[in-house]
Amino acid sequence: MKSCLPLEDSQELLLSSIKPLLSETITLEEAPGRVLAADIFAPHDLPPYPQAALDGFAIPREGKRGSPLSVKRILGAGDLPGHPLGPGEAAGVLTGGHIPPGTAAVVRQEDAMVKDGILTIDKDLTVGENIRDQGEDFPAGAVIARRGTRITPGLSAVLAAFGFQEISVFRRPRVAIVNLGKEIAPHQATPLPGQVRDSNGPLLAALTRRTGGQVVAIHYARTKTEKQIGELLMEADVVLTIGGTASGNNDPGHHFIERVGGRPLFAGYQVKPGSHTSAGILDGRIILMLSGNPVPCAVGYHLLAAPVLRALQGLNPYLHRIPAVATNSFPKRGGPRRFLLGYALGSHQGWRVAVLPFQKPSNLHSLIDYNCLIDLPAGHPPLQLGDEVKIILLENA
Amino acid sequence: MKSCLPLEDSQELLLSSIKPLLSETITLEEAPGRVLAADIFAPHDLPPYPQAALDGFAIPREGKRGSPLSVKRILGAGDLPGHPLGPGEAAGVLTGGHIPPGTAAVVRQEDAMVKDGILTIDKDLTVGENIRDQGEDFPAGAVIARRGTRITPGLSAVLAAFGFQEISVFRRPRVAIVNLGKEIAPHQATPLPGQVRDSNGPLLAALTRRTGGQVVAIHYARTKTEKQIGELLMEADVVLTIGGTASGNNDPGHHFIERVGGRPLFAGYQVKPGSHTSAGILDGRIILMLSGNPVPCAVGYHLLAAPVLRALQGLNPYLHRIPAVATNSFPKRGGPRRFLLGYALGSHQGWRVAVLPFQKPSNLHSLIDYNCLIDLPAGHPPLQLGDEVKIILLENA
Repeated sequence: MKSCLPLEDSQELLLSSIKPLLSETITLEEAPGRVLAADIFAPHDLPPYPQAALDGFAIPREGKRGSPLSVKRILGAGDLPGHPLGPGEAAGVLTGGHIPPGTAAVVRQEDAMVKDGILTIDKDLTVGENIRDQGEDFPAGAVIARRGTRITPGLSAVLAAFGFQEISVFRRPRVAIVNLGKEIAPHQATPLPGQVRDSNGPLLAALTRRTGGQVVAIHYARTKTEKQIGELLMEADVVLTIGGTASGNNDPGHHFIERVGGRPLFAGYQVKPGSHTSAGILDGRIILMLSGNPVPCAVGYHLLAAPVLRALQGLNPYLHRIPAVATNSFPKRGGPRRFLLGYALGSHQGWRVAVLPFQKPSNLHSLIDYNCLIDLPAGHPPLQLGDEVKIILLENA
Repeated sequence: MKSCLPLEDSQELLLSSIKPLLSETITLEEAPGRVLAADIFAPHDLPPYPQAALDGFAIPREGKRGSPLSVKRILGAGDLPGHPLGPGEAAGVLTGGHIPPGTAAVVRQEDAMVKDGILTIDKDLTVGENIRDQGEDFPAGAVIARRGTRITPGLSAVLAAFGFQEISVFRRPRVAIVNLGKEIAPHQATPLPGQVRDSNGPLLAALTRRTGGQVVAIHYARTKTEKQIGELLMEADVVLTIGGTASGNNDPGHHFIERVGGRPLFAGYQVKPGSHTSAGILDGRIILMLSGNPVPCAVGYHLLAAPVLRALQGLNPYLHRIPAVATNSFPKRGGPRRFLLGYALGSHQGWRVAVLPFQKPSNLHSLIDYNCLIDLPAGHPPLQLGDEVKIILLENA
């Protein structure tokens, strides 16, 4: 087991231990937000045939303003075009409907007049005007989207247009959350003297769902033996423990991983807050031991748990790390590399970031509004207003 | 009924016709993503009493490096402190646990040595060090969050810490989607000649869910009479119709609103694409008639439907409209105010935006990736690389 790794090494150690979960098939309605498990190609041209772009008349190349054409047919919804346009012939067509072979353009209903079966055009037209070419949106065989793409509302619309009924996506990671502190009671309970309501469990559950995982359970060491917890973990792909990473009396310590039968990957990393965070692996399941303090618990989630959950879904594990200008100050100097909870706003001059107040590890206050992590290097000086820093924009920022 | 209103006038006309929906009570687990229907105040101090910030020893003001103190008690999890620290006295304390009155600081276990009940401190301490003051995170009565706040994972953690079990949130808007085009078949069906698979229904359903609404049904005029549709609409807060807004043969036209018993609010607005978009109201329900073409259908959703859905949830109806620099060009000139589907990226120098290819109203292609609308004013010149434009960043951009 390695101790006190740099952040990137601990992330790589975790990610090298996993691969994307198996795929599963879901309906199109369930698809938005899920991640494609296979490339998707256009099964046919879209549009599948040349279409009228509006309701009007298909006209031949010789059709022009003022010269009369004879309307010999009106194509209704679903009518096939049959024979080409004859000389001097026009045909009524509908938006999205077929046009006869030999159509040079479609004239809008409002730009033409029909009297006794004779069409007079009121407007100059260019060849191809108001025609949707076959395959102009997607030619057959074109890539629609690649494996590893998160399905947007718009992509689901494209899949619907092609008639895809079942979509192959990566299974959602199952996450079990375990409070190891014996003093932690479920937030629904009225705490006895010395007990503290669980706030990290609801935090990690909500973050997990936002990253695309599903929460199978929140357990409490207070009411379960380690053997029972070990058995319950077998239902999960990822186990997030809370507390028990400091060295005090009251903590089971990071040997928990070994006691539940796992192999430790690292103990501690060079990040503040949350330097005691540990990780292990058990039958392909990742165990991450996060701090029991709210701020380092959140930071550990974003730096270690979220990349694992994204990688398990076949996504790029890492979020963008971008420059931003600080709009306030932070008095402490490094020490180790430090992450602060921040609020970032994209402005005309680039990203601005405010260090949120209440950055003590035990304070919940800054959790309400944060949308980024501010990444201060080891040995950093106190942060001044106007300094450029690197930030990691979080999902839904 | 008004015709061809400017965008802002049409938005205001819609928003002045509605108010936030009634509130409902949900559990904390269901809360993330929902919108608070009432201000929330801290019901008590948090921390509720002065706490040790780590496992160690509570020491009095005279405790300093090298001078021995007598350890007379060890406070276990949940132990109340009772009497103050006596002269020359220290007490064992646990992270988050009580400290005795008269405690000046807490020394970390690793920075002290205890032998035969005598504590020797190995480190200089300042007054207040490693003590969490009562109420330092939230004093009793402090605002935790205001009505109209969307609940973040972190806010749900704060609510859990205070023991809030039931959260009052605005009800999610119920949205019915109706395809008025007789040629539109459900995307699950194999289309007959002349039929087209519904892609706008899945698009609007996914967008509605992302904005916080719930989709009650997707209906098809093909299989239902207007009377039947009118009855079904009574289940919804908002009705989005697709198609039937152009003037062609095949379209029921915007008189649909009157035929189902509603009052038209406006017919058409000064926006391209989608200028035929209409709106009405029926027993407090908003009816929005969006284009049957995918690009104007999406644009109409973002400009008109999303503000309505946000306002019904008690949120600010409008998203930020910010400057960005175009990274490519767009050849057409205005005409009316025009919205393009774009892909925006926040950079060091501010926002950059690419006009996505395939901007014909009938093309689905640009729907896959867009994350913003590019807002070009009426009469705009062709867009050039490097031009500054205004963009509206969409949710989850």
